[in-house]
Amino acid sequence: MNRQTITETEMDLIDALNWRYAAKRMNGQRVPEEKVERIKEAIGLSASSMGLQPYSILTVTDDEMKKKIRAAAYNQPQVVEGSHILVFAAWKEINDTYIDEYMERISDVRGVSLESLADFRNSIKKMVAGNSEQQNHEWAARQIYIALGTGLTAAAVEKVDATPMEGFVPEKVDEILGLPAQGLQSVSLLVLGYRDEENDFLAGEKKVRREKEKLFVEV
Amino acid sequence: MNRQTITETEMDLIDALNWRYAAKRMNGQRVPEEKVERIKEAIGLSASSMGLQPYSILTVTDDEMKKKIRAAAYNQPQVVEGSHILVFAAWKEINDTYIDEYMERISDVRGVSLESLADFRNSIKKMVAGNSEQQNHEWAARQIYIALGTGLTAAAVEKVDATPMEGFVPEKVDEILGLPAQGLQSVSLLVLGYRDEENDFLAGEKKVRREKEKLFVEV
Repeated sequence: MNRQTITETEMDLIDALNWRYAAKRMNGQRVPEEKVERIKEAIGLSASSMGLQPYSILTVTDDEMKKKIRAAAYNQPQVVEGSHILVFAAWKEINDTYIDEYMERISDVRGVSLESLADFRNSIKKMVAGNSEQQNHEWAARQIYIALGTGLTAAAVEKVDATPMEGFVPEKVDEILGLPAQGLQSVSLLVLGYRDEENDFLAGEKKVRREKEKLFVEV
Repeated sequence: MNRQTITETEMDLIDALNWRYAAKRMNGQRVPEEKVERIKEAIGLSASSMGLQPYSILTVTDDEMKKKIRAAAYNQPQVVEGSHILVFAAWKEINDTYIDEYMERISDVRGVSLESLADFRNSIKKMVAGNSEQQNHEWAARQIYIALGTGLTAAAVEKVDATPMEGFVPEKVDEILGLPAQGLQSVSLLVLGYRDEENDFLAGEKKVRREKEKLFVEV
């Protein structure tokens, strides 16, 4: 994967976060693949409870597909004006196959035996078994939101606009992308592109955030 | 708030994310306040659905308080070995007072009239009213996880270890911090400190993440 040199990524994270906002209109300009790759790499490195990453991320760039997703997303224009839609989809069921696959991955990467991971495997299985299907879905969804937070930050560093979207009908998006057959359920969209400064009423607006003294409480 | 100069923050975000992991043991060294402030500033700039930020973050540094929280967190040592515990707590109820306060904040920051925000205010109220209490809580919790993802990334950039924790009894932490009286409910902890390389078995381990071709699906 390509990587910018340090001099190219000189940045202040706070400046990048101040620059970002959720663009409601984008200008159709395509995000270069190397930037998309770095954003995806950051997403792949996101923290996740027990390291499980109980989700997949689908990348949509096809115009016809984007139009269909737009129709399932209350017709919001940035869905087709952005160049890449990342669809964050949670595992429908956190089953033993996934957990065993994760153990094999740990075993491969760290060169440890599967036997030595037995306690860890059992603790994950126990947690999953102790929750309802709905609770497990919510847990997976929360992990997705960590990945969203990471991806949004990475996009800002790349000076790529990224609009996270909850405003869509998950069942419709699932159907469009054939997610049920893949054991997946859409949770959030992240549209990557470039802000349309002329047509987005939000582009020129000041960022509004809660006052520090209200958001943060010293104990 | 202090800000590092660009030369001090020269960084590669991917390297920072590769460096981070969820330390299970920390060495007691105190994270400098200016670093904590930058991490908090990043958290405060996190994306949030409709910009509402339906949560508060409590900072705990007192040793006695940390011991109590550790007891409510299955005795995990990093809770007392880290220097700052950030407690992410969701609003128990997303009531009209909060929504109106948000409108006033927008009005102040952007210099627009409250009347011009009526449609936006109503759309938030409608969403909240259309959800059950549990759904609103989950929605708020998901927003917290975006902030967690942002904070984890910011901590990594600062070379500060940050361990996100779901493994605690929320009711006990709520009681310790008096959260019910503040209309808050704990959702996640984020312990800031420095890894104890000698005693944390994970400190020297390779990072395990799902293979890119499994995590990402091209449509």
